[in-house]
Amino acid sequence: MKSNPGRFFEDFCVGEVIVHATPRTITQGDAALNIALTGSRYALFCSDEFAQACGLAHAPIDPLLAFHIVFGKSVPDVSLNAVANLGYAEGRFGAPIYPGDTLTAHSHVIGLKQNSNGKTGIVHVRTTGLNQHGEEVMSFCRWVMVNKRDAAASIVDAPAPELLPYLSAVQLTPPPGLDFSHYDFALAGSPYAFEDYAIGEKIDHVDGVTIEEAEHQLATRLYQNTARVHFNAQTAGERGRLIYGGVAISLARALAFNGLANAQMLLAINAGRHVAPLKAGDTLYAWSEVRDRADLGAYSIGALRLRLIATKNRACTDFPLKLADGAYDPSVVLEFDYWAAIPKRG
Amino acid sequence: MKSNPGRFFEDFCVGEVIVHATPRTITQGDAALNIALTGSRYALFCSDEFAQACGLAHAPIDPLLAFHIVFGKSVPDVSLNAVANLGYAEGRFGAPIYPGDTLTAHSHVIGLKQNSNGKTGIVHVRTTGLNQHGEEVMSFCRWVMVNKRDAAASIVDAPAPELLPYLSAVQLTPPPGLDFSHYDFALAGSPYAFEDYAIGEKIDHVDGVTIEEAEHQLATRLYQNTARVHFNAQTAGERGRLIYGGVAISLARALAFNGLANAQMLLAINAGRHVAPLKAGDTLYAWSEVRDRADLGAYSIGALRLRLIATKNRACTDFPLKLADGAYDPSVVLEFDYWAAIPKRG
Amino acid sequence: MKSNPGRFFEDFCVGEVIVHATPRTITQGDAALNIALTGSRYALFCSDEFAQACGLAHAPIDPLLAFHIVFGKSVPDVSLNAVANLGYAEGRFGAPIYPGDTLTAHSHVIGLKQNSNGKTGIVHVRTTGLNQHGEEVMSFCRWVMVNKRDAAASIVDAPAPELLPYLSAVQLTPPPGLDFSHYDFALAGSPYAFEDYAIGEKIDHVDGVTIEEAEHQLATRLYQNTARVHFNAQTAGERGRLIYGGVAISLARALAFNGLANAQMLLAINAGRHVAPLKAGDTLYAWSEVRDRADLGAYSIGALRLRLIATKNRACTDFPLKLADGAYDPSVVLEFDYWAAIPKRG
Repeated sequence: MKSNPGRFFEDFCVGEVIVHATPRTITQGDAALNIALTGSRYALFCSDEFAQACGLAHAPIDPLLAFHIVFGKSVPDVSLNAVANLGYAEGRFGAPIYPGDTLTAHSHVIGLKQNSNGKTGIVHVRTTGLNQHGEEVMSFCRWVMVNKRDAAASIVDAPAPELLPYLSAVQLTPPPGLDFSHYDFALAGSPYAFEDYAIGEKIDHVDGVTIEEAEHQLATRLYQNTARVHFNAQTAGERGRLIYGGVAISLARALAFNGLANAQMLLAINAGRHVAPLKAGDTLYAWSEVRDRADLGAYSIGALRLRLIATKNRACTDFPLKLADGAYDPSVVLEFDYWAAIPKRG
Repeated sequence: MKSNPGRFFEDFCVGEVIVHATPRTITQGDAALNIALTGSRYALFCSDEFAQACGLAHAPIDPLLAFHIVFGKSVPDVSLNAVANLGYAEGRFGAPIYPGDTLTAHSHVIGLKQNSNGKTGIVHVRTTGLNQHGEEVMSFCRWVMVNKRDAAASIVDAPAPELLPYLSAVQLTPPPGLDFSHYDFALAGSPYAFEDYAIGEKIDHVDGVTIEEAEHQLATRLYQNTARVHFNAQTAGERGRLIYGGVAISLARALAFNGLANAQMLLAINAGRHVAPLKAGDTLYAWSEVRDRADLGAYSIGALRLRLIATKNRACTDFPLKLADGAYDPSVVLEFDYWAAIPKRG
Repeated sequence: MKSNPGRFFEDFCVGEVIVHATPRTITQGDAALNIALTGSRYALFCSDEFAQACGLAHAPIDPLLAFHIVFGKSVPDVSLNAVANLGYAEGRFGAPIYPGDTLTAHSHVIGLKQNSNGKTGIVHVRTTGLNQHGEEVMSFCRWVMVNKRDAAASIVDAPAPELLPYLSAVQLTPPPGLDFSHYDFALAGSPYAFEDYAIGEKIDHVDGVTIEEAEHQLATRLYQNTARVHFNAQTAGERGRLIYGGVAISLARALAFNGLANAQMLLAINAGRHVAPLKAGDTLYAWSEVRDRADLGAYSIGALRLRLIATKNRACTDFPLKLADGAYDPSVVLEFDYWAAIPKRG
């Protein structure tokens, strides 16, 4: 059979490196679509002149767009038969990505653990994205629950190394050249600098966006993510097409502009979890919590560790997250923990 | 509160200059999306060679796309709490905008007038768009009805200067270099030149396009226009999401190709009014009336002053506009008065 | 009347050359939209480096995107009053098209044949696309059934020359410079080379995609194809908007990546037929049959002649095509016969 059936749990082997298909030259066309699909307004990614004033060659590609594209490459090899995308950790961004750069991706299988039901197992991979110079532009771990082809197959577990719950500030490396010394707060859309955010502070991002089938399908195809659950209404039946989790991340992060306009540059993804399914017709809202702060030293660069929560069909005025019993509030669809660079007032 | 609550009527001050956020480098990606979202076929904006034959460096950005982007920048500062977008006037286009140019925008508050109900007021602004060289690429006035935060707040009216009902021909300045002496009518798609249009002539643009939620949301996000009424089905409830008026302008102008293919280059927006709301599922039609003609002298450039009417769910065979009692026909959604450059036969 | 009423059958004249409007500079923006609209993953069109390793200057424009754009130009002149788009033949691709190239198009009328009902006739044209250097980038024949304006009009038939049922291998000309000697199968996403495909082999492309109104309208507008049946829900009424056949071709060809990832470069369109209408809400599936193989000699280039079948709302596990009585299976919407270049293992 020449079409790709996808790997089942017993097809993975710890230590193996899987080279993913379809190298991709990211262009200004992709960047424009990213704006149309998310409404993102972070100035650093929208204006060559703003980016140059921040020490970069010109406006880089939104790291989340690049993340979704690298993630998408791994789908046919890692998660075509996945039951669930369970989480991310240890996401780091390296060299900034500019229009014209070409991304390739590969994944190391770093852990395999069969579930007690014998029908599924959890696969851990570390996926790396490289540019055309062979420089690492990102790496992240993710783990997915994958069906076994044959429930009787016997697999020796090889648990993944323990992953960090979050990167510490000393592990953060801002893009070479980044310099917020001459940052224009008015053009960026907010007067709030690193110094203005306190640990524990919560921010309601106010706006809500209702998502259409065509929108999430266009986004997911732009990422060349082929997971079937996003595209086929016929096989989805009553439960409907599932929106790719990355769409929720990017929409929530675009909403977060309203309150975090200067938290421009993603430095790390500490953790991510898609808590509940999102469907077309749902309205997405978001709020953020400041979990940590770090002065990165020179060039007026600070970093905020932020927890971004996205909900469906419920505004975030009262910061919904968990119920009294510890379970997630039923409105919550995403919990996403990241570090972002933000200018110090200096 | 770090998220932007938007300004209320009493937050504006006549004479104030508001710098708007998110400078934007407009790219070929934006131009491609503009074609996909509107279907526009005016040759000057589609072909580098056609534009060069008309004396330009290469294909410029559609002035309406740039207009919506500049307008979008003003929304968070001017009209986030607007009840209604009442009108435009004195729109002028300056230096042509090319892919790679970066637009910034600011607005002067030029008038404030409280409504007799005490709950709202009308804010007049003049919004200016600049390119990365500081050259003015456009300016226009608009006025919006904005809620007061506090009905008891007392405001001293400062009426706006009287705005011109339309620009006169002597105020028009075609882009430097524009030259229609070697214009290719066959490639442009119509044999009709300046000389063929008579004042009072009406043109039915024939075609109709049904608008989807995903389409207007993608367009409005491309413009980075964040007005809530366009995106949130939950808060919109029964009345549904409202389509941003600029979407109607661009779709109607794209339909107008069929009859006005050579009226390529917007020179001025004399007036604009969104007469009735447009919703997804509506089918938009358009017709135009020639209101004035002006020979701009050299380089075979003429100008037509055109009134563009867009209707919903009613073809324009009989040019619907007003009823016997002077009210708008219920099908009319847009009245838009502009000057466009058109080649003389020479 | 200045708006274009479209040509009726009696308006065509054999031997006539019709120059089509709106020259188009194709950009990276169009290429990005093509990915978002189709999900295509063929590496040659996605990565500058991959294309360079195959001897090309950088990633060319997907020939199908260019085909739809050239086709779209011919619509206002050829098929605005068409009842049905009956078929294609003798499609050849010439010089590769790169971002920045400008396409123009013209059509020769090569055949006219009135139908026995006297109300319609069949128009044959050969449409040619040129780049800005005047080089032919493609040509193809198509025939459409067009309404007569006046059933009483008497027309002398001028039958089209007989068209080839398919191009033979010796008529294929790969793009100058194309060289698969150093082809990277892993990056391309499939280990299967020319040698692995046998005549008669059938491949189920497995995946299905449900199409939304916004998606096909965006695509068809990107192609600047203005045929009314695709856009106007009001005039379409109960039967709904018809999806432009080219959308089915591109989606099916994108699905065909799963099984034919190395059949990268379209060399010729032998035949195409839109068997049944496709509507929004339909789910498209596809399968392919290898109809012929040809070793093109040097540079490790082979060619496969492929029949691509697209169905609606029925998976292609059992390769649906025709019923026992010779009629098409009701699920079939497209039969498309083409040659594609594929690397030899060498």
